[in-house]
Amino acid sequence: MPEGSPFPVQNLPYGVFSPPGGDARVGVAIGEQVLDISAIWAGTPLGADLATGSLNRFLRRGRGEWAYVRRRLLELLTGTEQRRLVEAHLHPLDRVRLQLPFEVADYVDFYASEAHATNLGRIFRPDGDPLLPNWRHLPVGYHGRAGTVVVSGTPVRRPSGQRRGADGAAPDFGPTRRLDIEAEVGFVVGAPSRLGEPVPVGDFADHVFGVVLVNDWSARDIQSWEYQPLGPFLGKSFATSVSPWVVPLEALEQARLPVAAQDPPPLPYLEEKEPWGLDLRLEVRLNDAVVSRPPFRDLYWSPAQLLAHLTANGASLRTGDLYASGTVSGRLPEERGSLIELTWSGRDPLRLPDGSLRTFLEDGDTVTLTATAPGADGVRIGFGEVTGTVVS
Amino acid sequence: MPEGSPFPVQNLPYGVFSPPGGDARVGVAIGEQVLDISAIWAGTPLGADLATGSLNRFLRRGRGEWAYVRRRLLELLTGTEQRRLVEAHLHPLDRVRLQLPFEVADYVDFYASEAHATNLGRIFRPDGDPLLPNWRHLPVGYHGRAGTVVVSGTPVRRPSGQRRGADGAAPDFGPTRRLDIEAEVGFVVGAPSRLGEPVPVGDFADHVFGVVLVNDWSARDIQSWEYQPLGPFLGKSFATSVSPWVVPLEALEQARLPVAAQDPPPLPYLEEKEPWGLDLRLEVRLNDAVVSRPPFRDLYWSPAQLLAHLTANGASLRTGDLYASGTVSGRLPEERGSLIELTWSGRDPLRLPDGSLRTFLEDGDTVTLTATAPGADGVRIGFGEVTGTVVS
Repeated sequence: MPEGSPFPVQNLPYGVFSPPGGDARVGVAIGEQVLDISAIWAGTPLGADLATGSLNRFLRRGRGEWAYVRRRLLELLTGTEQRRLVEAHLHPLDRVRLQLPFEVADYVDFYASEAHATNLGRIFRPDGDPLLPNWRHLPVGYHGRAGTVVVSGTPVRRPSGQRRGADGAAPDFGPTRRLDIEAEVGFVVGAPSRLGEPVPVGDFADHVFGVVLVNDWSARDIQSWEYQPLGPFLGKSFATSVSPWVVPLEALEQARLPVAAQDPPPLPYLEEKEPWGLDLRLEVRLNDAVVSRPPFRDLYWSPAQLLAHLTANGASLRTGDLYASGTVSGRLPEERGSLIELTWSGRDPLRLPDGSLRTFLEDGDTVTLTATAPGADGVRIGFGEVTGTVVS
Repeated sequence: MPEGSPFPVQNLPYGVFSPPGGDARVGVAIGEQVLDISAIWAGTPLGADLATGSLNRFLRRGRGEWAYVRRRLLELLTGTEQRRLVEAHLHPLDRVRLQLPFEVADYVDFYASEAHATNLGRIFRPDGDPLLPNWRHLPVGYHGRAGTVVVSGTPVRRPSGQRRGADGAAPDFGPTRRLDIEAEVGFVVGAPSRLGEPVPVGDFADHVFGVVLVNDWSARDIQSWEYQPLGPFLGKSFATSVSPWVVPLEALEQARLPVAAQDPPPLPYLEEKEPWGLDLRLEVRLNDAVVSRPPFRDLYWSPAQLLAHLTANGASLRTGDLYASGTVSGRLPEERGSLIELTWSGRDPLRLPDGSLRTFLEDGDTVTLTATAPGADGVRIGFGEVTGTVVS
């Protein structure tokens, strides 16, 4: 395996791929290959659940099964004798087509980065308190459109919509002029929960299977005109891109780190004995130039707190639920996870290496998010990438 | 058939039922019976699509197939010779279990009643313009939680959540004190659309299959604390009840009527040659007392405009998408579709026939929505009911 591969054996992220001429099936990435794990378990009920075009049937099997499969794959890929059993089922990554890894049930987007919420507050309400009164008490979030979650590589058509008229004039309708990205981290629910039964913070790992990268494309002009009083709608619902690989929580044990103290202390249902976050380092590239390096470790609310809040009213979880962090921004200007922050709403354009300037995205622009995290044995765990090109 | 049945042969709404000891399958309601239509088409691909626990596979077949099946059922149920073919497949409604009729893909809730939006504006912003500047330009809407849409009869557990502290004190967590209903009408998408391709107003009936009643249960105290700036979340996501019967658009031809003139005129993508609404008369009962009769005909935005707006940014539709009107309220006090309006945020309690007072719902309360519309041959089309009882 090449040094520095994002997919060392300590990672083993899950995805859905089609080999040339073959049907979609579940695989794990290893080095520059993908292992067809539906073939490893061929002839068993587990194998049938893996020989499908989504991870959902595997995810539904629950935590015990996730651990078993990972353990067995580690044996197969590291034992010299056993390795021969898998050789026939490896496909070069550059020869397969990667698909949306899971059917998205409900998609929730949070707003859990304090720097991001503060930046947007400063931009939109320059004279008020940048954080609204509820922000430090509860993880603010809302439901997005599950049906327009697409896999990395899907072109993103510039959406049209109503844009506020200047100086109180009537709005007009046309292509967004403020197309933006949001660099986020998403959590994939495997095991469902029952309606009426909140999931306590401590049960996080019984339900959440793994982590994807998310680019929540946003049309800022559409959003700002429509969002009062019921929140973002068409400014977000045209596309949300996710990475093709779901990194299992088990691969991220070494990435855990305590979250900063929360003030005020969270209400009991959000209290975690040792609240932990993940040391994911994101990178945002715009046409191959790195424009930001958002640190996921700075998130105010922990992943387990987000899940506990989401279900505190008894809302049930389904296999395939996706909840994302919201834009990840750090305290430094070069750590901001959206263009509206990086360019301060267009006031401070970015200069790209080709000399061109950007406030928001232009047709033909390609945005790519990547991330790494510390893994076992000192390796770095990669998340692959989520990329998309804007088309008119 | 009894005089005044909600399910005359001019209606033929679709649902999913389980006969005693049998698996779930698709049926149509006729009088006080349900016809097992999976049996009518047994042995055919259509029959296979009907012998399942949701309408989705039938819905995906599209408008031509919906029309064929309805036409054929009308023949079978009205021809004296043919009628004998169906006798064996009729089950008394009171002997079957009705299920959620379709798997909900995405759930969108609009805010399309001017009286409702105005009432809430007056209650929450007594000193400002009751309608926000965007309201007459676009149908305001947001995504709700698809996974907690439940069928009529499902008990509704009183949700807990954060409630704003009095006079700036910290919020606390506990059972909602302001549990409310929202009487709504929902539209069920059958035929999908492609990402990036808006659905014009004129294509409404190519995509929308039919209509259900919706009770969008709401916890007003949770909602009012959480909703800034991203909209309603946990205040709504604990339960949304729908009626077990989907009334096909074809049964509602006689219920069409023009919508009132819109001022300002809608932007071109919302322009409909002859904007039409539906003359649905809703009734809200609280513990058997009628507390409201909301008129759906008063909706400001037409059902086709709501769909065109929802997809104007290129968002795709999936089979099973549900979009609801938002609370239906008329101009008269006795036509308001939520308790927050009926009691003016608790200021004016309702007196029930047993002498008790209500501001918001108490444990044990049962709320039932019904509706009727004009049908062919002078009959009235019924929607069945959506009912739910509050449990602690």
